[in-house]
Amino acid sequence: EIVAAVENAFSQAPQPLRGRRVLVTSGPTYEPIDPVRYIANRSSGRQGHAIAGALAQLGAEVTLVSGPVNLPDPARVNVVRVETAREMLQAVEAGLPCDAAIFVAAVADWRAASPYASKIKKEGSGAPTITFEENPDILATIGHSDRRPRLVVGFAAETDNLLRNAQAKLERKRADAIVANDVSAVGGVMGGLDNTVHLITKAGVEDWPRMTKDEVAERLADWIAVKLGDGG
Amino acid sequence: EIVAAVENAFSQAPQPLRGRRVLVTSGPTYEPIDPVRYIANRSSGRQGHAIAGALAQLGAEVTLVSGPVNLPDPARVNVVRVETAREMLQAVEAGLPCDAAIFVAAVADWRAASPYASKIKKEGSGAPTITFEENPDILATIGHSDRRPRLVVGFAAETDNLLRNAQAKLERKRADAIVANDVSAVGGVMGGLDNTVHLITKAGVEDWPRMTKDEVAERLADWIAVKLGDGG
Repeated sequence: EIVAAVENAFSQAPQPLRGRRVLVTSGPTYEPIDPVRYIANRSSGRQGHAIAGALAQLGAEVTLVSGPVNLPDPARVNVVRVETAREMLQAVEAGLPCDAAIFVAAVADWRAASPYASKIKKEGSGAPTITFEENPDILATIGHSDRRPRLVVGFAAETDNLLRNAQAKLERKRADAIVANDVSAVGGVMGGLDNTVHLITKAGVEDWPRMTKDEVAERLADWIAVKLGDGG
Repeated sequence: EIVAAVENAFSQAPQPLRGRRVLVTSGPTYEPIDPVRYIANRSSGRQGHAIAGALAQLGAEVTLVSGPVNLPDPARVNVVRVETAREMLQAVEAGLPCDAAIFVAAVADWRAASPYASKIKKEGSGAPTITFEENPDILATIGHSDRRPRLVVGFAAETDNLLRNAQAKLERKRADAIVANDVSAVGGVMGGLDNTVHLITKAGVEDWPRMTKDEVAERLADWIAVKLGDGG
């Protein structure tokens, strides 16, 4: 009965994204150094998972490509689990074509060029030399793809020159919007429940007030519904 | 009433470790590269947390020094949260003197020599050069300390030559026992609920059958109770 009531509530809510396919990435990526060690970005996945859930609530058919997180799957979302940046790109490309792609994951920019097959021994040899190489830029790759979704949104975690860095990314990566959030010690909301973000588009900058990640997700999902509604 | 019944069950259970102070470490450590990136070892913290809980159930006064994990605090345990290896060592030293110390945490062997205060920018500069330096060896430091607890137990995650590596550690780190577990792809139980371990002491090697991490914890807690009972 509860399930039926919930289903009912869903079906009566406005569903402006019904019939739309949306891809969302979330969480960190783990880049192995050896079988036990890895490099990662700090990311709880809370913001990305909330956005996937909010889009599904508006009726979208959502695929969530997620790195390692400790979060329940959002309701009515198709979750694809990955670990590395290259696996994430592959899963995103497998999810095309779609109407919109929202890249929230904190993808590691670099990976170890040659991960060790066995655990690096500490004894005797001192600290290891690890050579890094650049990971694919998933946002830029999809932004420039000939299968580019109509709407492409990136997230940017910045500690300095937040808006200037985000505006540069908008151009370079062919995104329609960048959601910039401040992860400096001052703005520091990483891993927490709140977020303070700026929505940067060609039209300018919207400063959103500090709100919960769920509220950011709902507001962004509404914005996406309007964008996909325009001349869709 | 349920609480009362549980309390009652606790007080009626045998409490061979009543009055004993035991330190347990658990989880990974995170070693920052910059404000958003870090190096870590894979560790869910499940085994260390289970051991802390099992020792508390036997009546010990348990301090659990834990790196970043997504686990509930075990019942009746004093939890101290840390992030880096150096913070973990500091918290362990603050917990001395104690009767036994069980080092289950997957401590990162290296840290970035000079973490960046701002997020390293990807653009233009290519992959960064990161110089690593060795972290303190917490097990060896406490094993050789003049405040060494009477019983010191280390954990060793190995992919190769499991027993030989663990036996070498026993000597070098002045541990009374090493619990060795195989984290190679074959034995691979990291992050899972089961564990296959070997208990290595001067007396020899005990191969324990594959069992749940809770069962490993109970068996090890019983072993510790016997050891602390001998000539205590």
